[in-house]
Amino acid sequence: MTVSVKHKVNFYDTDAMAVVHHSNYIRWFEIGRVEFLREAGITLGELMDDGYLFPIVDVSAKYLNPAYFDDQLIIETIPTALTKAKMAFDYRILREKDGIVLVTGHTQNVFTCRATGKIARLPDKYYDKLKIMI
Amino acid sequence: MTVSVKHKVNFYDTDAMAVVHHSNYIRWFEIGRVEFLREAGITLGELMDDGYLFPIVDVSAKYLNPAYFDDQLIIETIPTALTKAKMAFDYRILREKDGIVLVTGHTQNVFTCRATGKIARLPDKYYDKLKIMI
Amino acid sequence: MTVSVKHKVNFYDTDAMAVVHHSNYIRWFEIGRVEFLREAGITLGELMDDGYLFPIVDVSAKYLNPAYFDDQLIIETIPTALTKAKMAFDYRILREKDGIVLVTGHTQNVFTCRATGKIARLPDKYYDKLKIMI
Amino acid sequence: MTVSVKHKVNFYDTDAMAVVHHSNYIRWFEIGRVEFLREAGITLGELMDDGYLFPIVDVSAKYLNPAYFDDQLIIETIPTALTKAKMAFDYRILREKDGIVLVTGHTQNVFTCRATGKIARLPDKYYDKLKIMI
Repeated sequence: MTVSVKHKVNFYDTDAMAVVHHSNYIRWFEIGRVEFLREAGITLGELMDDGYLFPIVDVSAKYLNPAYFDDQLIIETIPTALTKAKMAFDYRILREKDGIVLVTGHTQNVFTCRATGKIARLPDKYYDKLKIMI
Repeated sequence: MTVSVKHKVNFYDTDAMAVVHHSNYIRWFEIGRVEFLREAGITLGELMDDGYLFPIVDVSAKYLNPAYFDDQLIIETIPTALTKAKMAFDYRILREKDGIVLVTGHTQNVFTCRATGKIARLPDKYYDKLKIMI
Repeated sequence: MTVSVKHKVNFYDTDAMAVVHHSNYIRWFEIGRVEFLREAGITLGELMDDGYLFPIVDVSAKYLNPAYFDDQLIIETIPTALTKAKMAFDYRILREKDGIVLVTGHTQNVFTCRATGKIARLPDKYYDKLKIMI
Repeated sequence: MTVSVKHKVNFYDTDAMAVVHHSNYIRWFEIGRVEFLREAGITLGELMDDGYLFPIVDVSAKYLNPAYFDDQLIIETIPTALTKAKMAFDYRILREKDGIVLVTGHTQNVFTCRATGKIARLPDKYYDKLKIMI
């Protein structure tokens, strides 16, 4: 199930080439991921309070077209793999007004125990919510 | 006692006006403040591990001249007030190659107890190190 | 006339004190300012394409209460002064769910000529739109 | 030829997990790339003034170990491919004090014409300087 969330490009997101700096899309993948969890009924804050972290271990992005100041973007987040220890997502970031795909990407995240920093097995109460979304 | 630290402008610090985005100088005041503490023999990490935080309560900045990509900057941090509960600093950010002052600023920080979030009285072991620097 | 715009705190906006890093509010004042212009019928992009820049010359902020990851914020922008050469704004950033004011601030911006970098006199087609909003 | 540059982790680089936010390493790859060009005798600013841009088209990163506030990092940049139209780099970011590799990565950049945005063929005066470094 694809989850979409909108994000408007701020002036501070641009760089001296007058386009969005490429590092920002990596941040916006995170916005997509957080929104995906929320759609599944999980807030990242809750998960953390419950002793789990969801750090990223791998990211890749292809920059196809630039975004500009004030562009309204659509961040699409698509789950591609889920186990109790990890979860992977694909992303597409499009410009709303012309539908052009600007950036595609992929991340791999793992569930870890906040106290130990080690890989954790996600409890069913969370896992079941995510499984439905795949 | 003025403490100086250098910082080079990165491409990602610029915006679509091809100058450094103004919010970055606020971050660079923090670099200056952290360096000031270090010069006094205190690392912010130690202070935090010891149960104290040093949050900012007030900031102001005047933007006099723009900085550009690749400029080598000098961040000067000057203590202007110190009690066991709070500390204030003035800042000057200059471009090294021409000595032009780009930004001046001021911050007020307080010492708080990490556990309670309330204003703390800084122990003498830290306070004495800071007092010498005034 | 106060212009309000919402902004949700992203995970990447937080710092190791688990609160929003103070530099982000300076960025969010910019979101408020851009939205204010839009409400007046002016987009910053248009203004720039027309040869004018709107750089900040002065900022101040008071940090009253911390914001946390996932907080929905309201950025209020209130014009306080306008001439053909400059414009000043006050800001209030509140948390939506409890209405608590987190940060207040003030900025002074000037209108400059993009080609020369010098202070410009804003043409009436823009000035009149802003004057109505005061 | 590997080019190394140091970078200290600032407090504003951390997130609420008390580690460096993963998006920052993507920015630090850029610091490495700019330093690589400089070592080759090319400043990115010059290149841009001369009508060329060097946008990124592809990035990937593996996050192996977290960096913390105040860590001194070493960014290693290794060229892996060069034509007159594009250049690829590998990166390794290590913590200086223990030599642990924190992040590895790869980017692909292209040379474009600033005026047209199209892929350009890099003039020999630049290309020759880069070729020596491979």
